[in-house]
Amino acid sequence: MLPIALITDFGEKDWFAAVMKAVIYSINPKAKIIDVTHEISPQNVNEAAFVLWNASRQFPSKTLFVTVVDPGVGSGRKIIAVKTDNHIFLAPDNGVTGMALSGSRIIKSVHVENHKFFRHTVSRTFHGRDIFAPVAAHLSKGLALQQLGSPAPYIPEQTPFVDATRPGRYRGRILYIDRFGNLITNLKVPLRASGTAEIIPHQKGLKSRKIHLVSTYSDVRRGKLLAYPGSSGLLEIAVREGSAQQIIGATYSIPVYLKIG
Amino acid sequence: MLPIALITDFGEKDWFAAVMKAVIYSINPKAKIIDVTHEISPQNVNEAAFVLWNASRQFPSKTLFVTVVDPGVGSGRKIIAVKTDNHIFLAPDNGVTGMALSGSRIIKSVHVENHKFFRHTVSRTFHGRDIFAPVAAHLSKGLALQQLGSPAPYIPEQTPFVDATRPGRYRGRILYIDRFGNLITNLKVPLRASGTAEIIPHQKGLKSRKIHLVSTYSDVRRGKLLAYPGSSGLLEIAVREGSAQQIIGATYSIPVYLKIG
Amino acid sequence: MLPIALITDFGEKDWFAAVMKAVIYSINPKAKIIDVTHEISPQNVNEAAFVLWNASRQFPSKTLFVTVVDPGVGSGRKIIAVKTDNHIFLAPDNGVTGMALSGSRIIKSVHVENHKFFRHTVSRTFHGRDIFAPVAAHLSKGLALQQLGSPAPYIPEQTPFVDATRPGRYRGRILYIDRFGNLITNLKVPLRASGTAEIIPHQKGLKSRKIHLVSTYSDVRRGKLLAYPGSSGLLEIAVREGSAQQIIGATYSIPVYLKIG
Repeated sequence: MLPIALITDFGEKDWFAAVMKAVIYSINPKAKIIDVTHEISPQNVNEAAFVLWNASRQFPSKTLFVTVVDPGVGSGRKIIAVKTDNHIFLAPDNGVTGMALSGSRIIKSVHVENHKFFRHTVSRTFHGRDIFAPVAAHLSKGLALQQLGSPAPYIPEQTPFVDATRPGRYRGRILYIDRFGNLITNLKVPLRASGTAEIIPHQKGLKSRKIHLVSTYSDVRRGKLLAYPGSSGLLEIAVREGSAQQIIGATYSIPVYLKIG
Repeated sequence: MLPIALITDFGEKDWFAAVMKAVIYSINPKAKIIDVTHEISPQNVNEAAFVLWNASRQFPSKTLFVTVVDPGVGSGRKIIAVKTDNHIFLAPDNGVTGMALSGSRIIKSVHVENHKFFRHTVSRTFHGRDIFAPVAAHLSKGLALQQLGSPAPYIPEQTPFVDATRPGRYRGRILYIDRFGNLITNLKVPLRASGTAEIIPHQKGLKSRKIHLVSTYSDVRRGKLLAYPGSSGLLEIAVREGSAQQIIGATYSIPVYLKIG
Repeated sequence: MLPIALITDFGEKDWFAAVMKAVIYSINPKAKIIDVTHEISPQNVNEAAFVLWNASRQFPSKTLFVTVVDPGVGSGRKIIAVKTDNHIFLAPDNGVTGMALSGSRIIKSVHVENHKFFRHTVSRTFHGRDIFAPVAAHLSKGLALQQLGSPAPYIPEQTPFVDATRPGRYRGRILYIDRFGNLITNLKVPLRASGTAEIIPHQKGLKSRKIHLVSTYSDVRRGKLLAYPGSSGLLEIAVREGSAQQIIGATYSIPVYLKIG
């Protein structure tokens, strides 16, 4: 039986994630449900894509990843189910699976259309309960993807990563801001690099910052900005014992310029 | 087997909710436990009542809802178990089940008194561990309510909602403040309504606000207050890309005046 | 089968705790996993020790406690597995189990060294996934401790508590700061005591505070500091309807002086 991994922006305070789990158990009482996170920033598809990418490459094979970060719910957006040589992904067709699938071999990919596997009535606002949860429960019990709907030829996105392993100048962007306020970029950097990163906030009145590349936190003093290769192999910008997000005023997707060597 | 849904104000940082779950598993190793939330504001019975109402009407039938928001723990307050045609509810007898039960048909209702189903010693401060968890475990295994104690004739509360679907003037109050700072009222409004809401904060120095009813967020500019029919059919007051709670200085139960038409 | 209780500093927003759970299920699909907390302050071994102590004495017998608060990951620090007459503990050998074990009878204690029970490749940074999770899964299925590595004679630490039940002057320290900002000390005090506590913040510019011992919150006015015997029998310092941590500027381990009688 496939374990079901949930990624949503429903938060921990309200009841929405719990309702999804109750619906899953009502169809598959033996389901193994793993909460990856319900703390994605509201409607932040990029953040969810990054978490899904990291979780999917670190989880053991044969997991069903259900991602409900869905600003287009109630509009005409489609829902896809994609089977790779490693996992199954169920998500709105809004790009949230792009990063996770960018390096995968696609076995099958369908649009989720068959109302037989939905809740009897489908609301306009809570597809997590009405579509994602029941479909996930059926998939976890072994339902074949082709039962869900018509093929949806999946064209993998270009990887979002920029190879910055050789000397040169690169332009990247912020992929993810973690709970410590560290800024994780899409720039793949060598473990030992010298150079400078420059980050230019969008907000008026905030000035751009030039930051020297170092190896680790202890290379700078408390409260100082640093740029270093993180555990994912990506350039990260942080403040020793502080929050780079707060100090820089950075948000998702703002550009980061990097000079290596 | 009944799944057990937990609603508490124990928070995520400490160990209290985990202890409850461990006690449940020690009695019923096959229990399905669903955390609805442990992030109810400390001792806020009204907030818990609202979450219980929403969760209970959205969960599939035959769930055991265990609510431990219990300012009276250690005093003489009683504990009730109530079976409706849909679910079973276990909670302190402090009104927290009122909203959830207001529209239900009561099958049976008892005071929870039988020490046989409690932990061997019962503390004065942690009935979640000593009473609610073991009783929930036994109920999830099929224990009949009458085994728990004497009948507690349940007189359903009046529904807390105010029908404001026709033109007129209404007085309501804030039922719930969600994690975005949106204020959810007890006023049932039509999907398309014109009119004004007025909210008067308790705190001195904060001025009352008149807010025009709109259909959705995009009808106002960023940072502006709006009042609109929310997904529960209740009037909500929000700020586009901001927190109404912060801007208004609102708290639970403060009055909201509504003029429809 | 042993339930597995997890204590980490991974937070709720990211995917690390979920990866651990997925690895556990991949080895033991029937595992019962209980999240005690993932909200330990980053790398705060003292805080984790306090939570582990409380959880382990309140959980039913025969639980496997897995604590991953591990500032030394990637260095030469060892990992220990300790079986007591009550539970099994798996943790880095950094003192985090000290408080929980201080009153226990040790049955067996080993260094965790046998790569056969680790993930096939072990990273330098994520032993939660690569060592703790797979070893925990095997232990929950009944693996004997001696299979994991060589004996690690465990010398129980001295209890961190100071017996302050009789009149006199005592020096203690802050063991734990809860989510309300209450300061829990290591001073064991009688249920009814009169006297004064004095707390001296480390930070310059913050002045020391003398606080009278009372029985309960209602003995002081809103916003006022109080010192009282908490539910663990330890002296706590709080602010009525406020945060002692914020008002005092207190941090872990700072000294607290107590005069009883």
